[in-house]
Amino acid sequence: MKDNTDKKLAEIARQDDHISYRKLGHIPKRGFWHWFFGRPLASADADHQTIGKAVGLAVFASDALSSTAYATQEILVILALAGMGALHLSVPLSFVIVALLIIVTISYEQIIHAYPNGGGAYIVARQNLGEWPALVAAASLLMDYVLTVAVSTSSGVAQLVSAVPALLPFQIEIALVMVALVTIVNLRGVRESGAIFSVLAYAFILLLLGTLAVGFLKYFTGGLPAVIDPPEMEMLGEAAPLTVFLILRAFANGTAALTGIEAISNGITAFKQPRSHNAGVTLIWMAGILSTLFLGITFLSHEIGTVPSEMETVISQLVRTVFGGRDLLYYLAVGATTIILFMAANTAFAGFPRLGALVAKDGFLPRQLSYRGSRLVYSRGIVVLALVASLLIVVFRARVSGLIPLYAIGVFLSFTLSQAGMARRWWKVSKLKPAKSKKTKPKLQLEGEVLSFDKYWLVKMVINGFGAICTGLVMLIFAVTKFQEGAWVVLLLLPVLMAGFLAVHNHYKDLARRLTLEGYKNPPAIRRQKVIMPISGVHRGTLNALRFAQSLSKDVTVLHVAVDAEAGEKVLLKWQKWAPDVNLVVLGSPYRLLLEPILRYVKNAADNRKPNEIVTVVVPEFLPRVWWHSWLHTRAAQLLRMRLLFTDGVVVVEVPYVVD
Amino acid sequence: MKDNTDKKLAEIARQDDHISYRKLGHIPKRGFWHWFFGRPLASADADHQTIGKAVGLAVFASDALSSTAYATQEILVILALAGMGALHLSVPLSFVIVALLIIVTISYEQIIHAYPNGGGAYIVARQNLGEWPALVAAASLLMDYVLTVAVSTSSGVAQLVSAVPALLPFQIEIALVMVALVTIVNLRGVRESGAIFSVLAYAFILLLLGTLAVGFLKYFTGGLPAVIDPPEMEMLGEAAPLTVFLILRAFANGTAALTGIEAISNGITAFKQPRSHNAGVTLIWMAGILSTLFLGITFLSHEIGTVPSEMETVISQLVRTVFGGRDLLYYLAVGATTIILFMAANTAFAGFPRLGALVAKDGFLPRQLSYRGSRLVYSRGIVVLALVASLLIVVFRARVSGLIPLYAIGVFLSFTLSQAGMARRWWKVSKLKPAKSKKTKPKLQLEGEVLSFDKYWLVKMVINGFGAICTGLVMLIFAVTKFQEGAWVVLLLLPVLMAGFLAVHNHYKDLARRLTLEGYKNPPAIRRQKVIMPISGVHRGTLNALRFAQSLSKDVTVLHVAVDAEAGEKVLLKWQKWAPDVNLVVLGSPYRLLLEPILRYVKNAADNRKPNEIVTVVVPEFLPRVWWHSWLHTRAAQLLRMRLLFTDGVVVVEVPYVVD
Repeated sequence: MKDNTDKKLAEIARQDDHISYRKLGHIPKRGFWHWFFGRPLASADADHQTIGKAVGLAVFASDALSSTAYATQEILVILALAGMGALHLSVPLSFVIVALLIIVTISYEQIIHAYPNGGGAYIVARQNLGEWPALVAAASLLMDYVLTVAVSTSSGVAQLVSAVPALLPFQIEIALVMVALVTIVNLRGVRESGAIFSVLAYAFILLLLGTLAVGFLKYFTGGLPAVIDPPEMEMLGEAAPLTVFLILRAFANGTAALTGIEAISNGITAFKQPRSHNAGVTLIWMAGILSTLFLGITFLSHEIGTVPSEMETVISQLVRTVFGGRDLLYYLAVGATTIILFMAANTAFAGFPRLGALVAKDGFLPRQLSYRGSRLVYSRGIVVLALVASLLIVVFRARVSGLIPLYAIGVFLSFTLSQAGMARRWWKVSKLKPAKSKKTKPKLQLEGEVLSFDKYWLVKMVINGFGAICTGLVMLIFAVTKFQEGAWVVLLLLPVLMAGFLAVHNHYKDLARRLTLEGYKNPPAIRRQKVIMPISGVHRGTLNALRFAQSLSKDVTVLHVAVDAEAGEKVLLKWQKWAPDVNLVVLGSPYRLLLEPILRYVKNAADNRKPNEIVTVVVPEFLPRVWWHSWLHTRAAQLLRMRLLFTDGVVVVEVPYVVD
Repeated sequence: MKDNTDKKLAEIARQDDHISYRKLGHIPKRGFWHWFFGRPLASADADHQTIGKAVGLAVFASDALSSTAYATQEILVILALAGMGALHLSVPLSFVIVALLIIVTISYEQIIHAYPNGGGAYIVARQNLGEWPALVAAASLLMDYVLTVAVSTSSGVAQLVSAVPALLPFQIEIALVMVALVTIVNLRGVRESGAIFSVLAYAFILLLLGTLAVGFLKYFTGGLPAVIDPPEMEMLGEAAPLTVFLILRAFANGTAALTGIEAISNGITAFKQPRSHNAGVTLIWMAGILSTLFLGITFLSHEIGTVPSEMETVISQLVRTVFGGRDLLYYLAVGATTIILFMAANTAFAGFPRLGALVAKDGFLPRQLSYRGSRLVYSRGIVVLALVASLLIVVFRARVSGLIPLYAIGVFLSFTLSQAGMARRWWKVSKLKPAKSKKTKPKLQLEGEVLSFDKYWLVKMVINGFGAICTGLVMLIFAVTKFQEGAWVVLLLLPVLMAGFLAVHNHYKDLARRLTLEGYKNPPAIRRQKVIMPISGVHRGTLNALRFAQSLSKDVTVLHVAVDAEAGEKVLLKWQKWAPDVNLVVLGSPYRLLLEPILRYVKNAADNRKPNEIVTVVVPEFLPRVWWHSWLHTRAAQLLRMRLLFTDGVVVVEVPYVVD
């Protein structure tokens, strides 16, 4: 963005006598607010707020990596319904899920290089599939971000209470405090959160890989015992036979491991140049670490016989079995897991506001979401996300198993749409096959994007197409097997959100059409003002306002509503003394109504106004300097103003009488 | 009040060419609101809304009479601390309390005749003792009204659950619903509540007197048994020896029987003419019935061995013992008791808003409290009372024993102040002893009230003086014995309320002084307007507003804050096309602040304005017709308006662009 704003505008202003340019460079005063959220950053600083691969992994990959903390447990919690004997199926299921992960990773790798300016499912779908699929993708991604915050925070708290059982009764409260903390960090800006979080993310990766290494060493040397004193098993419902449906349910739960993988492709613009390269490398590293952790955790958990439980997480059981008890390494590893889960919530805090701003710029969400705050972050989006996620945590009492059925369906819907969009894109690219002459390379201009021929189009299309089919299939499995458990909520919210998008869009479009200057003729000059000034009493404030009213027009009428005779008489006598030559209309109000007689009078005047005439209502308004003083005065002036503003041909002037 | 308003004002208007009088006679449209609260009543109807003796007894005496439903029980609950053997003391204590009642009644009889326009403690204290004692009386009376609602409703619910134990878990909810119902009845107006309530009040009196008659008949014929299956006794604390202090505590609790006796003297204006006579007769009837009920209930309760309990009230135990079980008469009598208690809350709903309006007229409470609503009642006071009383009910979980220690202290403080004021008044009257010539009867003009000599001044002074001493003594006993139990809350709130009264009064006095026209010269005419118009874009709305701005002055400057270059350039180019000859100032804002640059610019212009010049800021404002559309626009215009109104020498004009 740099400081081009200034130069460009100053240049135009220099050439026009009537236009001048001033840069006020206002730096707001310091105080608690700035200390808490950081000093304001100038727009020109925006470019510096980008991150490298190492920090990028910490900021964008924590969501995906942290899902290893609950994915295994969520597979087990379903298999457990068919009895302990079914738990061994978790190992083959995890291999299927890793295969799916590899397919999705390759697909996204192609997206990252095709969309160096950020290729979230929304953008890819919009450019290749059209408006409706794009809005579906946007709705599902926004829901997914909210659920990421709720699930990750809840799982983080579950890890914490596994290590410190005394905190068990305060799960919801702790979860809410954590959301608040992550919110504050994000309102300060992404670079600082990257710096804080990098250390922690790498601590998690090293500690968990270390735990797995020790675990496998003991496993191969025959020294790995079973879980000592396992917690009470969590039962999600009645015991059930081991059907294909049950296995598919367990598989669907396990796909939670893939959530968050799209975060990097949405946030490419946050990376240092060369963006695509850096983001792509980060994606591959992330997928590698994720696969290793997920497979290792699932395998060892099965070997030592962990059970899914609300009292102690699978991770906690695994770590204390590997290290032979709750020693320092146990607390470090479980602590790091807790922290990476809270950081996963942070990923959503990076993604949600960015996507919200994109959709808002296209006019499908309130425009305010696209304005950056004083710290160059989309503050409003951050706050919205925090509020909705907190609500979910309270409703689901911070239980991961309760939230999971709502979670992955949105993720896989957006996966499917982006892969399908990419497949369509390669098909379009194939049409651009170069002519024989090598000089003219045909290009296709597509909404600001330039497509050019790619000789590997077929391979790439097959890869993305296969990805779309796989993820679409998973989404269907999820929707069917999880429908009753809660997926129906998401399937219901999706059209509701879509309708919201369209309503917002229609409003903006409609407004633009009504305000457009195309085919518009400048309105005629206003020749005459009819001034009406309602007063409640005669005092210095009223007389000052009268002077202003008289400066507008010679046609000034003062209105007074007489509710009781005594006060009314006082006003009349004072008026005769202080402004004998100004017209005063006294309105009787037998029902003690104040506003209605004035409104009726003004409306009547507005209806009978001449062409090129406007009715100006001057409202003398008392402005208290002390906040509670406003309780000591009726808010008649404000109410009057609100009602009058909706009357055609009426303009409202507020003349304050401030009393110091 | 009649329709004098119209005639008087119309007369003045007729004689002045510049003043005209119009009576709009606006009757607001009907709908749910009017069906629920009744159609609006014209001011001219006010006089008809008065009541006779029979209805007056129902409306104003239900508070005092209903206190017999809990006074006995509250004596017993303290005596029970010293064991069952101490309960017999309730009978002699009740005689002492009735003696006190007689003294207070005679005192108030004198007040009613001395103050035919309403002689609450506030008015009597204000006219005879001065401002400070009057405010003390007002504060204690207002607190007392709130407590009346809380105590009576809670006791009513206690009667209800005695008869229908299944409702026991819903005491608080029922109490809140009852407060809401009484609120609605009162918002409809006093005459209708009188009509509904009369039948019920007389049913209570007849049923309770009937119960007592049957009870005494059985007692004298030896057929009155002891309470069968008495409920569990309520213990307020540790068992304690029977000390004088304990007896005084029990006595203090019993004085709750006197609460509400002042209601008639506060509400004399609600009576038909001759007011004082009607009100005085009602007072004596009330005192007679109250004494009979209280003595009878206490005596019989003791004879049959009732115990104070949270599960079943003393009244319920008494009635079912007299009638030999829970038969139809039992349900009728307890039902009538329940209802009269809810009606007692209604007394406070008549008194609190009237007193609030009086105090507000004197400028010690917000003026709004003195405005009558569309049904001729002081709606705001009614709503305030309902809210505070509901809060108390929730805090004290609808327990009468918990509320009693806060209750009577305010009542007796106001009793003492009004009796003392009356004593002082008779003293002043004695100074007016007629001269020898019988023709000139000396009079003393006192704040609109005319005092004349009264040859019985000494007797009257002694009566009121004795009343003051007795009630003052009771107040002291109450404050000391109940301090720890909760009276400290009242003693703490009293100065807080007083401080509030004074702060409000100072504000109004200060404002009047600053706005007064005494010694004021008409302000000079405004010669020139400097018009500044901030815009966010160039469209039909802006161009319309520009036309208005140009009709005010030739000195129009348009401001645009450029947050990003692209949008800023668009505005500049459009401006060059559509209003090339109007000055546009572009303000750069590197920190993306919108309001601050504009505020700084306007403030600067206001500071440098010439004499007789004013800065007029024209704010084009988008007014959405659909409520949720306002979420789709920043409220920058409103914020700007709010901030600018506090800048000296600035007037704000809002030009709406309504989009239909």
